[in-house]
Amino acid sequence: MQLVFDDSYFMRKALEEAELAYEKGEIPVGVVVVANQQIIARGHNLTELLNDVTAHAEMQAITAAANFLGGKYLLDCTMYVTLEPCQMCAGALYWSQISNLVFAAEDPERGYRKMGAKLHPKTKVKSGILEGEASELLKRFFIERRNLN
Amino acid sequence: MQLVFDDSYFMRKALEEAELAYEKGEIPVGVVVVANQQIIARGHNLTELLNDVTAHAEMQAITAAANFLGGKYLLDCTMYVTLEPCQMCAGALYWSQISNLVFAAEDPERGYRKMGAKLHPKTKVKSGILEGEASELLKRFFIERRNLN
Repeated sequence: MQLVFDDSYFMRKALEEAELAYEKGEIPVGVVVVANQQIIARGHNLTELLNDVTAHAEMQAITAAANFLGGKYLLDCTMYVTLEPCQMCAGALYWSQISNLVFAAEDPERGYRKMGAKLHPKTKVKSGILEGEASELLKRFFIERRNLN
Repeated sequence: MQLVFDDSYFMRKALEEAELAYEKGEIPVGVVVVANQQIIARGHNLTELLNDVTAHAEMQAITAAANFLGGKYLLDCTMYVTLEPCQMCAGALYWSQISNLVFAAEDPERGYRKMGAKLHPKTKVKSGILEGEASELLKRFFIERRNLN
């Protein structure tokens, strides 16, 4: 058997992170950062638990990846995230000069593209990888929350 | 003698934070967050020291202010910052729904307005308070850095 480390493989790892957020009652968004085919950072949304709007999955993973690399630029890194980043996270990715961003579901309301924020010109973007599964998890979360209230 | 807690007073406190960044070799940007005429959070840029693009003065102060308040929304708070926020920090301020943003110097290159990012519709913005002093400090920093290299 040969393990295939493709976009779906890493996005599935990001989805596992999103599931962890879900279990904690957080909007289920998960991230992994990959360098040389290895996961160097993980993160999931913790805004409610930490009472902190800056605790998005991406922000935590950017800090962790830079920590791992010993430098603040995420050159030759790829971020896999289950939802299109917001303008805050896109702004952080901009400063990190990350090489690749891959996201699953679009965020037509608060995604960085709708809001007008910009990634770094060096950053290549791919979207739609495991979009169905990521959207399904988000939908399930919001339906459950609505039924609780 | 009566202390006057006006915009200049609080911006001067933000400038003191910027001076702390300057002394550490960081791009000199400083912040205070004010609620009920009291400073509830301070911060200065630490991106180099922490090797972390997310360690802008504003991001740290948003986290600290939410921590002080025990809630993630900065309603009835004012952020005083010596430089126009970038899109990452504007995005964080958007999520915080902060009531007021006051900045000193404009950032015509990387400021949130140039980049296209948006604050929350509830947030009122004022600019230009102690602009000269904030710009002077930034200019001094970049001239010194150039001479070092």
